[in-house]
Amino acid sequence: MTTPPASPFVIGVDLGGTNMVVAAVSQDGSRVLGQHTEPTRASEGADAVVRRMVRMVERAIEAVAAEGVPRTAVLGIGVGAPGTVDRARGLVVEANNIKWYRYPLAEQLGGATGLAVRLDNDANCATYGEWWLGAARGGRNVIGITIGTGIGGGIIIDRHLYHGSTDAAGEIGHITIEVHGRRCSCGNYGCLEAYASGTAIAERAREALGNGETSLLPALSGHDPARITAALVYQAAAQGDPVALEVVRDTARFLGAGIANLVNIFNPDVVVLAGGVTQAGEGLFAPLRTEVRRRAFTSIAEVARIVPGTLPGTAGVVGAAASFLAQHTGHPPA
Amino acid sequence: MTTPPASPFVIGVDLGGTNMVVAAVSQDGSRVLGQHTEPTRASEGADAVVRRMVRMVERAIEAVAAEGVPRTAVLGIGVGAPGTVDRARGLVVEANNIKWYRYPLAEQLGGATGLAVRLDNDANCATYGEWWLGAARGGRNVIGITIGTGIGGGIIIDRHLYHGSTDAAGEIGHITIEVHGRRCSCGNYGCLEAYASGTAIAERAREALGNGETSLLPALSGHDPARITAALVYQAAAQGDPVALEVVRDTARFLGAGIANLVNIFNPDVVVLAGGVTQAGEGLFAPLRTEVRRRAFTSIAEVARIVPGTLPGTAGVVGAAASFLAQHTGHPPA
Repeated sequence: MTTPPASPFVIGVDLGGTNMVVAAVSQDGSRVLGQHTEPTRASEGADAVVRRMVRMVERAIEAVAAEGVPRTAVLGIGVGAPGTVDRARGLVVEANNIKWYRYPLAEQLGGATGLAVRLDNDANCATYGEWWLGAARGGRNVIGITIGTGIGGGIIIDRHLYHGSTDAAGEIGHITIEVHGRRCSCGNYGCLEAYASGTAIAERAREALGNGETSLLPALSGHDPARITAALVYQAAAQGDPVALEVVRDTARFLGAGIANLVNIFNPDVVVLAGGVTQAGEGLFAPLRTEVRRRAFTSIAEVARIVPGTLPGTAGVVGAAASFLAQHTGHPPA
Repeated sequence: MTTPPASPFVIGVDLGGTNMVVAAVSQDGSRVLGQHTEPTRASEGADAVVRRMVRMVERAIEAVAAEGVPRTAVLGIGVGAPGTVDRARGLVVEANNIKWYRYPLAEQLGGATGLAVRLDNDANCATYGEWWLGAARGGRNVIGITIGTGIGGGIIIDRHLYHGSTDAAGEIGHITIEVHGRRCSCGNYGCLEAYASGTAIAERAREALGNGETSLLPALSGHDPARITAALVYQAAAQGDPVALEVVRDTARFLGAGIANLVNIFNPDVVVLAGGVTQAGEGLFAPLRTEVRRRAFTSIAEVARIVPGTLPGTAGVVGAAASFLAQHTGHPPA
């Protein structure tokens, strides 16, 4: 009696401004092993971060080995990095939140592990993860929007991640929805991110409270406005708080305008939202879908499912592994 | 001595609300023969339009035959149609300006000519034509924007026209640039088309004149406000007319916001503008490029050439032929 050959594995790395997540993902997508998270501690410098990343990768490989899969069945490492990457050269070109500039991550990580390394942008990876194993599964043309501190985007065209001419496509957070609108951190005015990011949601709540309206938010935040977050706003809205409800409704309206743009441009079958926004529930998603239907062409809006991601905390690593497979083999993972 | 085999030809048809244009285009793109234009006269009904279209196609085939190329070397007919098409079924699904709804154009035209017929959207064809033989030649990821009565769009991803999940992608005219902005003919508010189409440009000029400012436009339009067109505004601006100059500057600002959105989303190497706007010259294109650089990410804006089309009147037929070749052979024309 022979046992079937073990499926190869890929190590996924999700490098964030706050945390790093690493896991081993089987090539067929059926298993995610040894997932663990550690603080990034970017202030220690890139080389120190990579040394800890290497140890996390080794632990993930051990988790694979513990299942009887040999190390030679680990095909390589996919890394989702913040900011812009140069996939051909394996560089993190510009990641402001961790202050890496033209850092040769593929070379450093590959040298230390002996494994092939492929990079991609973190929002691309989250989108690809949700497409491979999550809420956008089965989609052919998919737009992914990651909403956290900022707003990132990933674009899947005919089952392939789209990267643009210089690996910089998908800056969905910086589409203008108000020509004369709010100043954005990017320097532009009226960007979607300036209205609908987690940061902007908290800011709009603080502005509303400044007008003296009655709300649960001061109590929920220990009467410290700085502790108001988007998550807290969603929580208060779920409890019927009028200020929070209005902030969520406005968010749906702004986000709806941005998503209607993307829907009219791409005619996608799925739009998947990932990040903290997945906690917002139908209080956000129901008016959001209404706004998109109101603004986009009916026939185009009809075919686009707008869904929250189903892999919070895992879409990034899974998608980094999927991006490795796509770059390594030239076709999307099965 | 043998003559080299003649290059096959494709018949391109550009079906517009006002005119139909037909030409024979050689498969290698080196020759455009027998191009002619006739009024569409949509009011006569679809079948009558198709009968005239068939005669125009026959004339184009005769132009090919006159060069000694046999009829069997005509591979088929590509048609660029306004509105939405269903490429698989060969239907014009919804073309409001000629009032065709689910019209089986491929079947009708194919039945009458005995040739294979492939449809595509007219703005897609204009974009593909400029990519194949015009201003966007050599581009890998290209955004085409056709500005006339309305604003249409075409998207080329990795040298292939992108159609979206239901052939409806590229509604670039209807991206929101002002959430609370001008009402658009599509029912939405703040669409790019409501600010920067030819119609909107003429309208903004009429509004400016209503404020009593001194301008060449009344004289140029025979003191009939209804005769003010975008072309007339460009002409007056070129003569230094202050009202026209301000309208053109505002157009550049609105169009710049829309194009910055597309540049941030697609990271393209070329953005090509076709239609009447190509007459606007540097008076429009210079401030437009400035606005895009101001709004889009520097590294992304840097790699995107923003250029006027170089095939006015021909991009549509040439692109319809190119789309036929791409759909027929499965790969982009050489």
